[in-house]
Amino acid sequence: MTRTLPMTEPTTGMPDRVTIYEVGPRDGLQNEKSVVPTPVKAEFVRRLLAAGLGTVELTSFVPQRWVPQLGDAEELLDLLGEDGVGQQRPVLVPNERGLDRALEKGVTSVAIFGSATETFAQKNLNRSVAESVEMFAPVVKRSLDAGAWVRAYVSMCFGDPWEGPVPVEQVVDACSRLMDLGCDQLSLGDTIGVGTSGHVLRLLDALDEAGIGMEQVAVHFHDTYGQALANTLTAIRRGVRVVDASTGGLGGCPYARSATGNLATEDLVWALDGLGIEHGADLDALVATSTWMAEQLGRPAPSRVVTALAGD
Amino acid sequence: MTRTLPMTEPTTGMPDRVTIYEVGPRDGLQNEKSVVPTPVKAEFVRRLLAAGLGTVELTSFVPQRWVPQLGDAEELLDLLGEDGVGQQRPVLVPNERGLDRALEKGVTSVAIFGSATETFAQKNLNRSVAESVEMFAPVVKRSLDAGAWVRAYVSMCFGDPWEGPVPVEQVVDACSRLMDLGCDQLSLGDTIGVGTSGHVLRLLDALDEAGIGMEQVAVHFHDTYGQALANTLTAIRRGVRVVDASTGGLGGCPYARSATGNLATEDLVWALDGLGIEHGADLDALVATSTWMAEQLGRPAPSRVVTALAGD
Repeated sequence: MTRTLPMTEPTTGMPDRVTIYEVGPRDGLQNEKSVVPTPVKAEFVRRLLAAGLGTVELTSFVPQRWVPQLGDAEELLDLLGEDGVGQQRPVLVPNERGLDRALEKGVTSVAIFGSATETFAQKNLNRSVAESVEMFAPVVKRSLDAGAWVRAYVSMCFGDPWEGPVPVEQVVDACSRLMDLGCDQLSLGDTIGVGTSGHVLRLLDALDEAGIGMEQVAVHFHDTYGQALANTLTAIRRGVRVVDASTGGLGGCPYARSATGNLATEDLVWALDGLGIEHGADLDALVATSTWMAEQLGRPAPSRVVTALAGD
Repeated sequence: MTRTLPMTEPTTGMPDRVTIYEVGPRDGLQNEKSVVPTPVKAEFVRRLLAAGLGTVELTSFVPQRWVPQLGDAEELLDLLGEDGVGQQRPVLVPNERGLDRALEKGVTSVAIFGSATETFAQKNLNRSVAESVEMFAPVVKRSLDAGAWVRAYVSMCFGDPWEGPVPVEQVVDACSRLMDLGCDQLSLGDTIGVGTSGHVLRLLDALDEAGIGMEQVAVHFHDTYGQALANTLTAIRRGVRVVDASTGGLGGCPYARSATGNLATEDLVWALDGLGIEHGADLDALVATSTWMAEQLGRPAPSRVVTALAGD
């Protein structure tokens, strides 16, 4: 039996190219049960880069007591050396203290992590949405002053486990406040994976109407309910050109009894290859990386493509 | 934590309603390793009907030595009684002998199983595509003469594990030959799950140009590479109104090292609910059915939605 690659069938309304924003080392490993040794993380990042992923979010400068899985940010950057440098190697910074640590390591690209809902802002940031924007204001200003690129994640953009469906206007408001700080890019997160394609279109339309164009927007879907790829393709068709994904589908959802986390980079790459959309990544190298990482984590990768191809 | 249902966001270009053609009891169980006892199958069908699925393909009148999993077609229909009767309870018939058996049991709705590729026709039917159409001709004619409704499955419509990507013209040719026999409906099968949305559109466009309208077409996607839902939504957007799915995602792909089979009915229902598209099925009842069936089969359901919601 020979391996059957997808036939490439370009579709009208689709772009020639999209940028994959790889979140496996940060969002993926942050939500894995086991704490991965720093040298394994460095090897993971190097394999992702070697597979052709241009943008890789490396880690989070979060206090170790909050997220023990990512308590080794400095050590990881030391190990990565030149491989961890540049605008295409963002790191998450939760607050000014995190930014200080990141800038000390020479980081030139940061991400902050906001919320579209009050409940999640309280639970994750211990403050209201408005207070969190106040907290982020100096983080963003100092980052920009230092010449860094800034991404703003907005979590719970579709549903919230405590509040239910999130009104589109509320999400647009949270996004606008963060973009008003001067951020370069938004990443719309469906943190619990409940969104569907009509909802995605409504939110993107509303952002566009509010003056936040598609060139400033990235999407970040979780596959908890199997909707991640369909939603991502809907966003691409609507004009989004940066899509978040996690190699192997790493990162269980912390708010659902599910082993499925982020959209798997391999499943996305399969779709993009079939649509003739360039992205720069090599599928075989990604599958080999996920297979290797699954051995380190002691659990199979939830990616459908990895499951189907591993061992080929 | 409250359960977060998807927000309903109707989208332009989408229909008010689609028909789910449930294939779990036939295509699902046919590809499971274990042979399910007949009373459990009958209970499975009854639960699917109680969950609001209008159309349920019950079984296959295939020789037991070919598919031991479905060797009890007569017994199943006897057990189902009135619940197994009518046009919305199709059964697969591989040949005239199978049709004889089905008609003897009062079946009024049948499906035949053709191939778009020569290799699969040889391996599955032991004859060429042309010879298989000859074999099906009297099956279809006698079915129609008996007043039965006839569906024609066409397998390997996107890729073939031996031949690779399948040219669209070749698929259209196989479909046309089967429809020329007088079949009521085509079901386009991506048997190994390699297709992507651009390819889906190209095939549907080509069928339309060849005079096979969308009202005659159903789609049947496997989730081997994570593309099933995205492809199904693409087909619905293109005008297809009948979509195949398998409750729980039952049915491992026999041609890939993958536990993932058909599009899970629950994942489809989640998407349709979010899009405000009516379908008649109750998600909770489907999830409960899949959870129960997983216990019978001794393996978890591969549906993302079932994984996330089971136990709620």
